[in-house]
This record gives sequence, structure tokens and C-alpha cells, in this order.
Amino acid sequence: MSQSSATPLLDTVDTPTDLRRLKPAQLRQLADELRADMLSAVGQTGGHLGSGLGVVELTVAIHYVFNTPDDRLIWDVGHQAYPHKILTGRRSRMTTLRQGGGLSGFTKRSESEYDPFGAAHSSTSISAALGFAVANKLSDRPGRGIAVIGDGAMSAGMAYEAMNNAEQAGNRLVVILNDNDMSIAPPVGGLSAYLAKLVSSRPFLSLREMARRFSRHLPEPLHKAARKTDEFARGMAMGGTLFEELGFYYVGPIDGHNLDQLIPILENVRDAEVGPCLVHVVTQKGKGYAPAEAAADKYHGVQKFDVITGQQVKAAPGAPAYQNVFGETLAKLADSDPTICAITAAMPSGTGVDKFAKAHPDRSFDVGIAEQHAVTFAAGLAAQGMRPFCAIYSTFLQRAYDQVVHDVAIQNLPVRFAIDRAGLVGADGATHAGSFDITYLASLPNMVVMAAADEAELVHMTYTAALHDSGPIAFRYPRGNGTGVALPDVPERLEIGKGRVVRHGSKVAILSLGTRLAEAMKAADQLEAKGLSTTVADLRFAKPLDTALIRQLMATHEVVLTVEEGSIGGLGAHVLTMASDEGLTDAGLKIRTLRLPDSFQDHDSPDKQYDAAGLNAPQIVDAVLKALRHNSAGVEEARA
Amino acid sequence: MSQSSATPLLDTVDTPTDLRRLKPAQLRQLADELRADMLSAVGQTGGHLGSGLGVVELTVAIHYVFNTPDDRLIWDVGHQAYPHKILTGRRSRMTTLRQGGGLSGFTKRSESEYDPFGAAHSSTSISAALGFAVANKLSDRPGRGIAVIGDGAMSAGMAYEAMNNAEQAGNRLVVILNDNDMSIAPPVGGLSAYLAKLVSSRPFLSLREMARRFSRHLPEPLHKAARKTDEFARGMAMGGTLFEELGFYYVGPIDGHNLDQLIPILENVRDAEVGPCLVHVVTQKGKGYAPAEAAADKYHGVQKFDVITGQQVKAAPGAPAYQNVFGETLAKLADSDPTICAITAAMPSGTGVDKFAKAHPDRSFDVGIAEQHAVTFAAGLAAQGMRPFCAIYSTFLQRAYDQVVHDVAIQNLPVRFAIDRAGLVGADGATHAGSFDITYLASLPNMVVMAAADEAELVHMTYTAALHDSGPIAFRYPRGNGTGVALPDVPERLEIGKGRVVRHGSKVAILSLGTRLAEAMKAADQLEAKGLSTTVADLRFAKPLDTALIRQLMATHEVVLTVEEGSIGGLGAHVLTMASDEGLTDAGLKIRTLRLPDSFQDHDSPDKQYDAAGLNAPQIVDAVLKALRHNSAGVEEARA
Repeated sequence: MSQSSATPLLDTVDTPTDLRRLKPAQLRQLADELRADMLSAVGQTGGHLGSGLGVVELTVAIHYVFNTPDDRLIWDVGHQAYPHKILTGRRSRMTTLRQGGGLSGFTKRSESEYDPFGAAHSSTSISAALGFAVANKLSDRPGRGIAVIGDGAMSAGMAYEAMNNAEQAGNRLVVILNDNDMSIAPPVGGLSAYLAKLVSSRPFLSLREMARRFSRHLPEPLHKAARKTDEFARGMAMGGTLFEELGFYYVGPIDGHNLDQLIPILENVRDAEVGPCLVHVVTQKGKGYAPAEAAADKYHGVQKFDVITGQQVKAAPGAPAYQNVFGETLAKLADSDPTICAITAAMPSGTGVDKFAKAHPDRSFDVGIAEQHAVTFAAGLAAQGMRPFCAIYSTFLQRAYDQVVHDVAIQNLPVRFAIDRAGLVGADGATHAGSFDITYLASLPNMVVMAAADEAELVHMTYTAALHDSGPIAFRYPRGNGTGVALPDVPERLEIGKGRVVRHGSKVAILSLGTRLAEAMKAADQLEAKGLSTTVADLRFAKPLDTALIRQLMATHEVVLTVEEGSIGGLGAHVLTMASDEGLTDAGLKIRTLRLPDSFQDHDSPDKQYDAAGLNAPQIVDAVLKALRHNSAGVEEARA
Repeated sequence: MSQSSATPLLDTVDTPTDLRRLKPAQLRQLADELRADMLSAVGQTGGHLGSGLGVVELTVAIHYVFNTPDDRLIWDVGHQAYPHKILTGRRSRMTTLRQGGGLSGFTKRSESEYDPFGAAHSSTSISAALGFAVANKLSDRPGRGIAVIGDGAMSAGMAYEAMNNAEQAGNRLVVILNDNDMSIAPPVGGLSAYLAKLVSSRPFLSLREMARRFSRHLPEPLHKAARKTDEFARGMAMGGTLFEELGFYYVGPIDGHNLDQLIPILENVRDAEVGPCLVHVVTQKGKGYAPAEAAADKYHGVQKFDVITGQQVKAAPGAPAYQNVFGETLAKLADSDPTICAITAAMPSGTGVDKFAKAHPDRSFDVGIAEQHAVTFAAGLAAQGMRPFCAIYSTFLQRAYDQVVHDVAIQNLPVRFAIDRAGLVGADGATHAGSFDITYLASLPNMVVMAAADEAELVHMTYTAALHDSGPIAFRYPRGNGTGVALPDVPERLEIGKGRVVRHGSKVAILSLGTRLAEAMKAADQLEAKGLSTTVADLRFAKPLDTALIRQLMATHEVVLTVEEGSIGGLGAHVLTMASDEGLTDAGLKIRTLRLPDSFQDHDSPDKQYDAAGLNAPQIVDAVLKALRHNSAGVEEARA
């Protein structure tokens, strides 16, 4: 490999054990080689770039100083773990990143013993690290829990809950706050302002000062008396850092790109006995790669790109992304409706709320990684007469499930949920799949649940939601670009609980919810070609169901099949329940429900994922044919 | 009423408008009368006692100073709002508290315009108050958002997420931290220690000091220059309180029972322009009632009691409570298994974890009101070889839904979920009902979901869960006492995914999950009496289903009926899905699913709630008879 020749030192390091054989003076070169290697790999595959570039030195330093994998290292979110993957035996597979059968874009337990805890959603690392630390403490085994967490992830309540419990770990918990003043978008809120103030008001911790402070915290019995005095003094004085107030020993701020500082400070943290320790490291997202340094948000996640020019390979211009159709539609509606607000939890561009914010900055709220707050804040807005839209990915709305139940549904408040990334999502894999929202929302009283079949439908549903003041309403749509249908000039207000028949037939009825409609139509063509007249309905609503339409289709078709991009318990379950409630199965009903499988699906292209899930046209056809072959005795007949 | 004569001042106050006509000097007497009145009411009804007693003066002061209901007052959790209810037009209905058709034990929007936001789960108030404040700001209406939140509720991540966004409200947000060093159990963690230190290290804020500080923050243009200087100084100095670091103006600590201090300080908070303000009020739970002061946890929620002696009316001794059967079983198992741990989120006695903690204090973890952390902490413990049991009420596990999905199920980690308060819960009403857990758990790949039919089954399931190391497992059981069956000397390891037939018949099959089994058996007796031979199966598992058993029962019975204490999408949906997957409905199958209705049910006795839900024996019988009458043409036949 031509890249290898440029990385002579890195070529000698397959695992952290190799790394720990190097001399400290060699680490700078190793870090430079590691950065170049990662750039080269991500240039070929695309993926998360800026975060990894920012933690190259930190990755080297942690593995050099701590005893991984026995010390359990947990990268929060895990998208910054590419350098970590390279140093832990996965370098040769880096070009398979985020592709079917290849390495995950996040940490993953099944990939390596150096990934003790998988991630992808943010802010879980401190809780997990505490679990490892406490387990080792209870079973009297060596090994710390080390969490590396970004300042953005610190805005989530979960991180705070974990910090509040840190004392349980004693010396075994190390939290490394990777402060790059940037999560995906610029961070927001009081904590972010506080960290900025903290960094700007204190010089980087010097080696001399560090030595002075740590000399008192070396292991028993060296400095017992001195330590007690120090702790007493710390305990009495008010006004340490916020982290000290929560029970941490605070070390920092530290320049996260200076290995000459990082290594000795982490060694002291390792050896001192100060209880749970928070190391505040300041890094720069995209560090060492000029295009990424200059626009850290743009290089958070990238397509394949040219390492020299930084030019990303662009997809051909086509249909607009669903998120932008939503954002632009909402912005337009808000021009004439002063009560419309938009709320995002740290995903302004991912949700299209940035388009809304541009037009209506005062009514746009980025609350940080704080989905729980986002939903109840929206509930408060709704209770005071506003029309709030919570735009949250399906998988992240799981974070606010209780708030959806307790603050929104029980109170029947008209909060609008714009649920992006519904269904399978491709390269981000199982952790980001939006598989469960139909199930967890449609089971709630008062809730209305829609799914858009294409981007024109999304326009109608956004408008319908805006006008729905009688209770909560959710509409889901997938990641990626629309189907290319014309967008309506004037949005249509959909009748709540009414579907539409998009193709009329007589023998087979496909009840589709969401963007599988295109596959359902393809399947209908193929069935038609086999002489099976097929009706296709776009139900639009998982709740309330269009019971009149469903009843009629069941009465007039031989096979009825539901298709949805969601787990068991969703549309199919609701249709079956309605049918059995009404006794429609009593006299015999060939009904089948196609849904996501009972397994978590790894990253791959969405199309391949849907193939594996059995939700593409060929599998829909197969399901229909199989149902037709199934004879009345309940036994499948032999193929003719 | 004889009580009325003892409350001459309170008798003149029906709403806060009346209250605001009083002179400050009269408020002490009013508070005393209010306390006596509340004691008398709760003595007759039972309910939450200590919390309300602790905030009598605070309630009077807030309504006196602020312009409720236009200023939106939100009581976190809402169980301390009894004095508030008395002062806001609901005094005459206080004796109906928590009874069917009576007042809710929490705040509720439908009850009063003075309850702008319902509550019951903790830590939602700041988010909601922010919503109200921002809505008013956007629409240029007067009115603040005022959140009153306990120190225990502050340990939840959601409260932190909201504080992190407080700046959005400007002057319109007031957070009153009601610090009684006690939520239900003594509070835990870093924040609690911090608050204790804060209170002990600072004297109560004096009127003189308060005047000095606030004089600089009166409205424009009075003290513009002075204020800027002050803000500049505050902005530069590090090391204010934790709340100042998050962007609040901190006022306190204040003696929450001293009206002479409370009133002027709240007036200053009302009039000053300092941005979001946090008022730290120190109160005593149970204040003014000696038995409750002496044992604040015991008087958190009470049965009816004698006001003079404090003696609570006890239920007759009977079968043990489910929570205690769980706690004691787990403690016993842990005697011989050093890997078993128990985790509770601030509910040690409610979940029975207190029994475990007594025997194994080092392996018992109360993490505070922090369900998200609890679950991922357990995942970390499991990943490091421990056998953690997360004991959380069904309704509160909703707070950790994403952690169950992302950290436990996707990683297939053997975390055990002991889900208390499953199904309807009686006096706590809709907000505490455990309605959705079967649906939101059984839809997850890798998850095993059991429900105990009685307390002996709970013993078996606790044991089965302990030995289940191959992935996550959950078992649910209801609030209250068992059925009185003998507890097994030796627990039995249940085969995963296998149900049991508890009664053999031939025409009707009832598939029961959970404690409706007793009603199913009663229903079977009544059906038998009508000549309808009835099988009753206790499925034990919602996931994986006992497909062999279900298939066999469907093949051999005329009507098959599922019964569960959960919403749509749960057992019934899974049985229907299995049946349609296998084509069992093709030739005709009379199948019905009884489940909780598509509405949130208000507080009442559990039996009446289940009656309304249609899940008691008479309704089971009716459902069977109706299904039998339903003829093959899908039309219900006339009653014979």
C-alpha cells in the first residue's frame, strides 16, 4: 500500500500493547501518522471526520497511559472512535467503514474487546463507565471505567444523572470531557457558556501546577495527612467548578493536542487517589485538516472526498431531502401563522429546522441534546396557545417517550411531532434505525400518527398537523431524498383517519403506510402481470385507522396485506386488532402483515436493509403468492 | 362544619384574589388555618401528606405575591399541591381526593385554571414553565412561568436539561427550589451533598442583604449603570453557585416557613430584572405536624389517619405485597450469588429494593430520580459480568425507554427489569398506570417479557431472570398485595417462552397474561355454568410467545380470547400477528383480544378501573358470549 510507506511508526502498532512499547518522544510522530491514515481511510469511505481528527492525540495518550482493554474505555457517541479503531487492530478494515459487512461507524462490542460498550446515541458513556467501575470494585478486580464525552453530549440530562452518582465509583471513574465547543451544531445553553468561561478564564494547567496538586494525592500511605487537609479545605469552600460541586476532582483545562502535557497529566490522574476525576481537555474539531478546521460542522459527517482539495463527492441533484421539504413547508406556513414554533434537539440541519430558523429565528429553538426537555417545553408552549413542532429523529424521540406519554398525550396537548429518519437508515445501522415509533406512539390514547408516502404527502401532513389543535399529532418520514413527485403549490388538509386508494383491483389489497408505497405499487404491477388484480391503499394514518376503508377492502379482496417500515405492534397489529375486534377473521380472512424483522439490522445500504427485512417489491409479491397458496386447512399448498 | 369554625380567615378565601386582599400580618394565621384544614382533609381521605405540610407558607406566599393564574404556577410532581388546591377554589372537594370522581392527587389541567400543567412524574416543571414563559414572550402577553421543584426532583436529568435552556425565558422564569432534603426517600448523589453544603455554609438570606442585592436590579431606567457593573462582575468571576453557573440568578437560601422573609423576597424576585431566577427555599417535610416531622418518609403518602394520634388506618394483614415478595426473593438469591445487584431510582421501599439493601448494602444502588442512568448503569454492570436487576415502576421505566433500546436490547445485555406497578394502579390515576410496558418492550428484538399471575409466579420469575444470562429479560407485576397463594420453598426456573394450562376445556380458550388470571378463572367458572367448556392458559411470556401451545389451542377451540393488563400492541397484538403469519385466520378463527381501552383512565379503585376497562370476569364472559353469537357472515346474531 502506498499509504503504508508514509506511516512507518503506525505500521508497527497493531494494538495498544504495541503502542505502549514506544517512547514518549515517538508519540508525536505516531499521532501525525494516525491522523494522515484516518484522513485517507475516511476519504475513501465517507463517515464522521471532524470528531476523529480532533481526538487523535487524546486517543494515543489514553491508550498509552491506561491499561486498555482492562481499563474500560468508552467513547461517548462513538463517532470519534476512528483513530481508536485504527490503534486497536482494525486498521486494515477501515476502508469498509459503514458499508455492509464492514466496520461500524460507532463503537461496537462485537467488533473488538477494546469496545467494551457500544454507542451511537449520545451521553451514555458516564453511566456505562460507572457500571464497569462498580462491577470491578464489587468483584475486586482491577480496571477503571473511562468515559470520553464531548461538551455537546454534556447537555443531555443523562450525563448529569450519571455525574450525580459518580461517587459510587471511587477512584475507578475517569471522565474525560472533550471540549471542542461543538457537537454537530454549535452547542447551546448555560453549560456551554459556562465551559467557554471556564476555558477563557483559566490558563491551561501547567505541569508545575499539576505536579503541585497531585503530589498530595499519591497512593497511601505516602501523603495521607496532607491529603486529608486538602480534602477538608475543598469540602468546606463553596464555589469550585460545577464538576467539583457534583463530587468530581476537576483537572484542567488541558490542551488536548499537546502530548507533552496530556501524557504526564493522565499519568497523574491514573496514579492519584482523588475519587472520581474529570479531566477537561480542550480540542479542536477537524484538527490538522484545514478544510475541516475551517468548517467543523460541515465536516462532522462527510461523503467520500478528495483529501487534497477537501472536495466531497456529491450525490447527483435529484429530489429534495425530506428534512428540507419539512423545514421549508413549516417556514412558509409560519409566515402567516405567528403561533407556529419549531424545536430541535441539537439537529438544526438534520431536521430542516435550520430552514425555519432562518425565516423565523425568534420562534426556532435549539435546546441542545435534550429531547426530554424539548418535548415538555413544547407541551408548555402548546398549553399556552402556540403551535409547536418538535422535529426529532425517530430513534432520538425514544429519549422523550415518557414526556410524550405524561406531558403530551395524557394532557391531550396539541404538540406536533415531525419524526425524521423513520424506518431503516442505512450506514448508521441499528442504533439509528427508526423502527419503533409507530408502535410506541399509536398505542397512546389521544395520539394521531401519520406516515408520509412521499414528499408531497409530507407537505400535506405538515399542514394538517399545523391545523390540528385538538390533541397531539405525529408524522413520520424517512432519511434521504424524496421520490421526485411534484410538490403541491397549495397544501391540502387531510381528513384525520382517512386513507386513499391509489390503485384499484379486486383480488389482492395492499395496505401501505409510509414510503413503502412505491414498492407496493411495483409489487402490484408484478402481481397484475400474473393475473392477480391488486388494490393499493395508502392508509396515511396508523392511528386513527381508516376502519371503513379497511373493512371494505377486507370484504372484497381475497388477500389483505399490510406493509410498514416499523416493528411489530404498529400498523399491522392495529389492523389485525380492529379485524378481530369486529369479528372479521371469524369466517376466514387471509391477512398478512409485513413489518421489520425481530432483529436489529446492521448498517448497509437502505435498499439492501429493506431487502433483508422483506419489505421490497419482490418480497411483497412473494408474501401475497404464499398467502394465496395457503389452503383453507391452514396448510401451504405445493407450488403448481 | 365543625372544622370551619376553627378557620375563620381561611373561610373568607376561596381564590387567590381573596387572598391578595389580606394584609401581610394576617398571612401567618391563614397559613396555620390552611395547615389544619389540610391535615383534617387528608386524615379523612389519605394521600400525600408530608410534602403539602412542608409548603403551606410557600403556597400562601406565591399566590400572595404573584399574579396567578396569569402567572403560570407549576408544582413539580404535584403531590404537594393540596394547600394550593384549597386556596384555588377546591376546598369543599378536598375530602374527595384520590377517589373515583373526586379530586386528583396531583395537579390537573381539567380541574382548575390554577393548574396550567398537570403533573405526577417528577422533574417536568421547569421545562413546562419555560414553555409558558416563552409563549408569553413571543406573543407579548404578561405572565411568568413559575416552577416549584423539590431537591429530589432536581436529580433527574430532565430538570438539568431545562435549566440549561433557562436563558430563553429572560425575566419570565422563576424556579423555586423547595429544598427539604427529602424526596420520598432520603436523596442521594452529588447534587444533594452540594445543596446540603450550600445551606450549611450560608446563613439564610437576610432582608438587609436582599435589599442591597436587589436594589441594583429594579426596572429600567432606575439603576441601569449600577446593574451593568454588577453583571459584568458576576460574568467574570468563576465559582458562583451551580445554578449561577448554569445561568440563573440565585437567591437564597431562605427559610421557607418564615412569611416575613418569604413575602418581601418573592416581591423582589417578581420586580427585579435579573433574567431567570432560582429561589432556594429551605423547608421541612411534614412541617407543623409532629408525627410527620418525626418520620417524613413514612408520612410521604398515607392511608386515612387519626389527626390527633397520627395512627394510620391499616389494611387487614393479608397476602404480602408484590414488591416485598420480589425484594425478599432477590435478597435470598443474592446470598449465594455474589453477582446479583439491585438498582432503584429513588423508590427503595416502593420497589422492595430496601429488603435487598438490608441484606446486601454494597450491591444495592439508589441512583435518585434518574431512570435513564439506572438502566445504562445496569447495562455497564451486566457487560462486566454482574447480574443487575433494575427495579422500576412500569410508568417510570418510560423515562428510560431509549436506554432499554439502545444500551440494553441492541447490545443484548442481560439486564433484568423488575417492573412494578404494571397495569392499573388505583388512586394515583392515569399518570401512574403501567399500561404500555408490554407493548414497548415486547416489540424489541432480544427482549424476553414475562408477567406474573400471582406472587408465587413472581418468585419463579425473579429466579428465572437471575439465571437468564443470554440477554435482557423483564417481568411485570402489579401494585398491591398478592393473591394469597403459598410461596414456593424452592423457586422454579421457568422455561423461556413456555406457558402453562391451568384449566382444561374444549370450546373456549382464554389466554391470560399476568394477574387477570384470577378473573379469567372466575370467567371460566361462569362459562362452564352455561355449558361452555373452557380452557385457561397462563401464557407467562408475552415474548417469546408459546407458539406451540397457542397453535394447539387455536386448532382445538371455537373461541380464543387473550386477556392482559396492558394497551393495544401487547400480548393480543403478538398473538394475532403470529396467527396471521401462520395463516391460522385464513380458514376462520374466532379470536378476540381484551386489553386496556384507548383512553387514559382517571383515579378510582383498581377494581372499578378494571371494570371500566372491561377486564373483569363479567366482561370476559360477555366477550366470549358475544364472539360465539357472531355468525359466520360476520354479523352478530340476535340473543336467543
